[in-house]
Amino acid sequence: MSARFDPTILEALEAALPPLRERAERALEAALPAADAHPTGIHEAMRYAVLGGGKRMRPILVYATGQALDHTGRALDAPACAVEMIHAYSLVHDDLPAMDDDDLRRGQPTCHRAYDEPTAILVGDALQARAFELLADGEREGAPAPAARAGMVHALARAAGSGGMVGGQAIDLAAVGRQLDAAELEDMHIHKTGALIRASVQLGALASGPTCAATLNALDRYAKCVGLAFQIHDDVLDVEGDADALGKEQGADAARDKPTYPSILGLRQSRELAERLAGDAIDALADLGPGADVLRGLAAYCIQRQA
Amino acid sequence: MSARFDPTILEALEAALPPLRERAERALEAALPAADAHPTGIHEAMRYAVLGGGKRMRPILVYATGQALDHTGRALDAPACAVEMIHAYSLVHDDLPAMDDDDLRRGQPTCHRAYDEPTAILVGDALQARAFELLADGEREGAPAPAARAGMVHALARAAGSGGMVGGQAIDLAAVGRQLDAAELEDMHIHKTGALIRASVQLGALASGPTCAATLNALDRYAKCVGLAFQIHDDVLDVEGDADALGKEQGADAARDKPTYPSILGLRQSRELAERLAGDAIDALADLGPGADVLRGLAAYCIQRQA
Repeated sequence: MSARFDPTILEALEAALPPLRERAERALEAALPAADAHPTGIHEAMRYAVLGGGKRMRPILVYATGQALDHTGRALDAPACAVEMIHAYSLVHDDLPAMDDDDLRRGQPTCHRAYDEPTAILVGDALQARAFELLADGEREGAPAPAARAGMVHALARAAGSGGMVGGQAIDLAAVGRQLDAAELEDMHIHKTGALIRASVQLGALASGPTCAATLNALDRYAKCVGLAFQIHDDVLDVEGDADALGKEQGADAARDKPTYPSILGLRQSRELAERLAGDAIDALADLGPGADVLRGLAAYCIQRQA
Repeated sequence: MSARFDPTILEALEAALPPLRERAERALEAALPAADAHPTGIHEAMRYAVLGGGKRMRPILVYATGQALDHTGRALDAPACAVEMIHAYSLVHDDLPAMDDDDLRRGQPTCHRAYDEPTAILVGDALQARAFELLADGEREGAPAPAARAGMVHALARAAGSGGMVGGQAIDLAAVGRQLDAAELEDMHIHKTGALIRASVQLGALASGPTCAATLNALDRYAKCVGLAFQIHDDVLDVEGDADALGKEQGADAARDKPTYPSILGLRQSRELAERLAGDAIDALADLGPGADVLRGLAAYCIQRQA
């Protein structure tokens, strides 16, 4: 482990994560339509899909970015929930029989197993709409100025769409059974997971008020490195992880003949690359004060987590 | 036909529709990602799903609302495209094997037939994101102020989500094979198609600049009546229409045991209700000048169209 990973920062992160995760859970609980709101069937299923657990990595990145910019107000809750709803909808659609055909997600039946396929399609569609409704809403407590709201919608929509996350899923589909090189694999992940992680940091900054361009660039460099490190570590975990901790079958991606970092670079080189990227992410924050320690800790955490 | 349907207004509409439809086509062509933009597969399929024809009723409502408020500028193009992209994505997902399992749409193979199921799921997802990206974009020529952009996103997201269009689809799914009464059927359509038609008029107004509350209310009453009249006429066409003109199987909804207005009210009463609603829509515009004639004509058109 590189000297850049200060052990005190990881300890501080361990204390900081639970309250941020709880804040995300409470905010999601409040931001989703009530289960008894008409039409109830879809609302119950939307809540199932989002409130069923998860690391809440993206909302935590929104809150941690706010903290790095000395902002912790209510304005962060809408973007925290919006990015998580986009992430959750993508998992619901990814799990569908026509896509990955997964029965389990976070150890629970996937949405189309707990309900049915049409419901799962609609749940994903409705969660995406809800994400943008939240971001644009000017009536919410602590809602930022219209320009910040429009800016957040624009950033998240770009990251979620065909030039971002959905584009990455399309690249992924086209790659199954085909040999990718490292550059193609990186391109896939920059779209598939990287775009939404970058958007989490961008939204955290936009919700925190005006920030100078140099700081925004530093945060974006951080987010790019963290996003890729996170994904490489995911691939590593898929090879060596524990199925219970992952909540999905170990080696599932490899069995499906999906390209992974370990299959292209080998396991050791993949681990080293993830570690280097996490270090670069921390280096990008050099000009930020101790408020950025949660972001620094997250960079270390995302390559050490076991699930 | 009621005296409220001035025949000169229908003639004027016939002249007005083709240029508005062409404007919508050109705007959509420009607003969609280029077919050769990376990743190309999904972009080509998105263009197939949107540019494959259609009445363009919703973009035309956006433009016609602008015209009623003496506004015809470029600011209308983004909302016109955004509502049509939401509509198009809902058709792509509706046609999926797990939903209506349709092979034809507008006389052409549905998206999952022309491509495959995973692609069709992703195309719908990406079109929804693109709609909000467009609305929020402040760099586009003629983009309105941030408050109008955030307001348009908010209105469209509400209309598209679980309290609107997707909620209506969920109500529809839950209703198959069950006997609905007229109130339940109306509730389904208010969500399923009505919400997006209302949003088209709201977005047209928001993009046109500040409008007094009385005019906004009048436009909203118009849109509610037109939306329901449009849907009732759709049900009537499904019973008596010509399969070639419809581009789908005649009686398809009834065969699928979906509740329709003719099956609940009878054909004659359904026609009368649609006509009364179209008349109410025109009456709602009483205080607007000749700029609203396209809206008036559309109310008449939407219950006379053969497809």
